This record gives sequence, structure tokens and C-alpha cells, in this order.
Amino acid sequence: MVPADLEQFFSNDRFAAHVGIELTAAAPGRATARLQVQDHHLNAVGVVHGAAIFSLADLVFAVASNSHGTVALGVNVAISYLSAARAGTLIATAEEVSINPKLATYLIHVHDQDHKLIALFQGTVYRKREALDTVVR
Amino acid sequence: MVPADLEQFFSNDRFAAHVGIELTAAAPGRATARLQVQDHHLNAVGVVHGAAIFSLADLVFAVASNSHGTVALGVNVAISYLSAARAGTLIATAEEVSINPKLATYLIHVHDQDHKLIALFQGTVYRKREALDTVVR
Amino acid sequence: MVPADLEQFFSNDRFAAHVGIELTAAAPGRATARLQVQDHHLNAVGVVHGAAIFSLADLVFAVASNSHGTVALGVNVAISYLSAARAGTLIATAEEVSINPKLATYLIHVHDQDHKLIALFQGTVYRKREALDTVVR
Amino acid sequence: MVPADLEQFFSNDRFAAHVGIELTAAAPGRATARLQVQDHHLNAVGVVHGAAIFSLADLVFAVASNSHGTVALGVNVAISYLSAARAGTLIATAEEVSINPKLATYLIHVHDQDHKLIALFQGTVYRKREALDTVVR
Repeated sequence: MVPADLEQFFSNDRFAAHVGIELTAAAPGRATARLQVQDHHLNAVGVVHGAAIFSLADLVFAVASNSHGTVALGVNVAISYLSAARAGTLIATAEEVSINPKLATYLIHVHDQDHKLIALFQGTVYRKREALDTVVR
Repeated sequence: MVPADLEQFFSNDRFAAHVGIELTAAAPGRATARLQVQDHHLNAVGVVHGAAIFSLADLVFAVASNSHGTVALGVNVAISYLSAARAGTLIATAEEVSINPKLATYLIHVHDQDHKLIALFQGTVYRKREALDTVVR
Repeated sequence: MVPADLEQFFSNDRFAAHVGIELTAAAPGRATARLQVQDHHLNAVGVVHGAAIFSLADLVFAVASNSHGTVALGVNVAISYLSAARAGTLIATAEEVSINPKLATYLIHVHDQDHKLIALFQGTVYRKREALDTVVR
Repeated sequence: MVPADLEQFFSNDRFAAHVGIELTAAAPGRATARLQVQDHHLNAVGVVHGAAIFSLADLVFAVASNSHGTVALGVNVAISYLSAARAGTLIATAEEVSINPKLATYLIHVHDQDHKLIALFQGTVYRKREALDTVVR
């Protein structure tokens, strides 16, 4: 389940919508999303593009880090690509590994539908004081 | 200028096309691409999405690392987001900082049209022996 | 417990010894080590140096990735510093998140003695064919 | 040349001293240091330890990011190991790629004495308001 305020906020994430990512669950510090692989997610050699996998992981990173009601901005990310994915559904899950008033860090696992680990993503945000509902554009 | 073989190979990169990235130059170990910011590149707060910036950088990473004629697979990437971008054209440039028969590493700068640095991206590939023209699908 | 062959191999790790890191457990794909904080681990502001924390995490990364009997070389690492540490014992634990014949990736958590998470470290190795016992110098 | 205030501040960096790193130059946003390779910098296979290379790069990261007179804390780092080093002198150079009141990012190159690139290090700090001279312990 996705809380109504987060759902509304991220309904405005035009890039995630363009890529075709679906947010499936969110709670304070946590989020899950999925990507049903389609032809436009593939790279030149016919596997799911690294940037499509990144985009999926990035959405749960954004949702989890903005889940406390104030704006969080991505500072940096490290992603490791572990296995190629070709078809089916990819699922990303974010967990909050650390949070303080200014910074927070998240670990995101991306699996395929057979529970194979596709990518590991570690990201840090800078936490602003503005409430989410003041910044939507 | 983009060599004909690379241009043909990356014309099959469906995700880069879907995002709207344009490859503008390539040479052995180097590549440049641009993204004309459109509404579908924005995130929930109305700035260019981190994953869109990543996607732009990732294309020049892929082109530069595949520019030697054999297949290179992304192993991992670290990206730092330095400034927000809102509109105009973003430009990514890849340079090869190291290469050996098995691994190669690239540094990618993403600037906006005013030459402001937007992101710094550092990525490593694993180099396979297969020629590019044997793997297109 | 540390298997005798790994213990002997890493007894030759002069940098880990110089820093004062103690390997406490190892098994295929896993390792644990600890650092008893001393004055020479501190930085200019009197907290444990980021490079000392990195060194601790790096040992379990090396042991876990070399635990299969062949040589593994570090390709890259991303580390996030989550909390400052000042004294006591730090503990690093490595888990293997992915392995194939050429590459493997590890996730390392560094905790203090109160189980507070100090750092998160994600690293990838390139796996050579040489057996460990052929390369000790 | 190292400004007197930075030299005094980093003379208290006990870990850098223990490793044997020498700061050779510093200026606002920039720093250079060197490591004369000794036996205690080697790993189990007789090459310079990844954590020793990291420690060298980390010092110039710290000096460059603290060079503006206020305290900067490392948030995260990504390092790519490009070539093995065995002996001689290693040199790390930090450049500031971005700075704002809260965050700054640095790119560090580590070369050997033959100008071969050994490692590439990208790090971000969180900038506090405290002046350097109020925090030395």
C-alpha cells in the first residue's frame, strides 16, 4: 500500500511514469516498485538497459527518502550490476540504513521475478526542511 | 561525428531512444551525447530527474566502452549529483581513464548549456571478446 | 574460526597488520574482522579516520572474495559513512551478494560495539584463475 | 606549499601519520600528498594494498575539503582501482569539482612516479559551520 500523500506526490514524477515504473508499496523509510519489462527498456544487445534498472531503483530511493514528509535530494549513488535481465518483472526494494536530520542513506535491491538479484544500489540524500506538499510543481 | 558502426549499433538502444538522448560524437574511448530537457524528464519537484541525468551519462559510458569493437558490460557506476537542472540542453562527455584486456574505467561529466557541472559519473565495464556486430538483437 | 589456508594467506597482509586489524572469522563468501580503536586510528578532529574504517571493511572484502581459493582483485568500492566512531571495538562483516566466474560483489557492514551502523561498503572484485597459494610473496 | 593553519590542523591526523603519508601542497579546494611505498603498505600478494591507496587519496580529500576553514565530514566515496602499484612513490591530487554551503565534491587522481594512473577516487563531504580551529582534539 502507498500512503495517499506519497502517492499523490509521486504521481507527479513524470520520468518514472515515462519509463513505466509502478510504485507498489511505501512506508516510512521503505518503498517497493516494479517494472514490467517492455521493448523500450532494452539496450543495443537486447537486455534490460542499466539505466532502466537504475531508474527503477531510483524511484524507491526517492520514495523511501521522501517518506518522512520533508524533501530529500539525491547526493550520490553507487550501483553494481550483478546479472543481466531480459524479460518479465523487475522488483526494487529500498531500506533505510541510516538517517539523521541532514543526511540519510538507503540500500536498494533489484530482483527479477525468480528472486535473482539483478543490481545492488546504495544512495545518500541531503534532507531539506521544506515539507513535500510545498514543493510540488 | 559518430562512426557508422557505432551509430548503427546504438541505433538499437531502445531505452536511450525512449528517453530522448542523442549521440553527437564518438571516437575510440570517447563519446558525447545530449538531452534536450522535456516535461517527461522531470521528477516530482519539477527538476530534471536523477535517473534521466544518469541515463544520459550512461549512454556515453556505453558508447565509449564499446568503441573498441568488442562488447563491454557495465559492472558498476558511482554518480554524484552536483547541481539541479531545470531546462535547456544537457551534455554528457565520456573519457577513458583506464583500459586493459578485461576491464576499463570511464569518467563522465554532465554539464548544462551554460557549462555548469550537473553530475560526475565514474563507471567500470567488463570487456568481453565478442565483436559488437555479433551481438545485436 | 578462520580456515588455516586463509589465515596463513592473510598473515602476509602487512598493511592490515600495520593498521591493527584482526580477522576473526571466515568461510566461503563470508568474513568478519575487528579493530580495537587506538590513538593511531584517529583523524585530526579526534574521531576514527574514514580510511581506518575503510581498511577494516577492506580486509573482510579481501578475505571473503579470496575465500574460494583463487585470487580476487578489487575493482572498485563505494563506501558511505553513516555515524562517527570514537572508541571501543569496530566490527566488519562481509557477505557475498553475487558471484560468477569473472566477477563477484560483496556488501560489508561496519558496526561499533553497541551495534550502531558506522559504514556501508559495497565492492566488486575481478576473479583470476591463479590459486591463492601460488601468489604469496 | 601547505598553508600554516592546514599544516597544523593535519599534523593532528594520527592515522595519516601512522600510514606514512606526507602532505606536500594545499590551497583552497586543492591538495597533493605522497606515499613512499614501504613493506607495511603491501597486501598478501605483495602489491600496494587498496586500503593504503585509499588512505593516500583520503588525505587529499580531507585537506581539500577542509581548506576553506570550516569542518567538512566525509559522506561517501567511490574508488576505482586501475593498475597495481608495487614500489616507488605514489602521488594523490585532489580537485574540487563542486561546492555549495552544505555539500562539496572532489575528484582525486592517484598516480605512480611514472605518471601511470593507479586509482580514481570521487568523494562528497557535508560542510559544517564550525571553524577548523575550534574542533582540534
